[in-house]
Amino acid sequence: MSFRSEDSTRTIVLGNRPLRDYLLEAIVNLNRDVNSIEILGRGRHIYRAVTLYNILSSRLGDRITLKNVEIGSHLIKGRRISYIKISIQKS
Amino acid sequence: MSFRSEDSTRTIVLGNRPLRDYLLEAIVNLNRDVNSIEILGRGRHIYRAVTLYNILSSRLGDRITLKNVEIGSHLIKGRRISYIKISIQKS
Repeated sequence: MSFRSEDSTRTIVLGNRPLRDYLLEAIVNLNRDVNSIEILGRGRHIYRAVTLYNILSSRLGDRITLKNVEIGSHLIKGRRISYIKISIQKS
Repeated sequence: MSFRSEDSTRTIVLGNRPLRDYLLEAIVNLNRDVNSIEILGRGRHIYRAVTLYNILSSRLGDRITLKNVEIGSHLIKGRRISYIKISIQKS
């Protein structure tokens, strides 16, 4: 299940950049008109997705709420890749 | 938050053994009197925890239900380690 309400949800897909880049992206988005963000991590990036959430949570405290954690697998180039999607909402 | 109801929940903590060991452990437990299992993965094992759930889900289909996914961090030897706890219930 992957839906996006108009302009109010921003999805951050973790790649190979340093975690602080995604942290900055998340904080900038949360300080704008975005109501919620989704952190998507696949494969090895699942660990980093959880760590990114933990850092956000410790920095922003009760300004954000963990809305949902979805796990599953995507078929990418014929291979099943595990993913995590962490949905965070402004409190 | 980590509680265990009497004998009916089994926690599987992922370590360095091959994933098939934990898969076997999970399936054996679900075939016994256990009502639910928790898969706990810390750090790099978070990815493996999600993959273990995906394999279980594809093998057991609707015999199991994903009850909850908890993410957070534990303080271990003075360091914050991210974790995931995946709760699975017999359907």
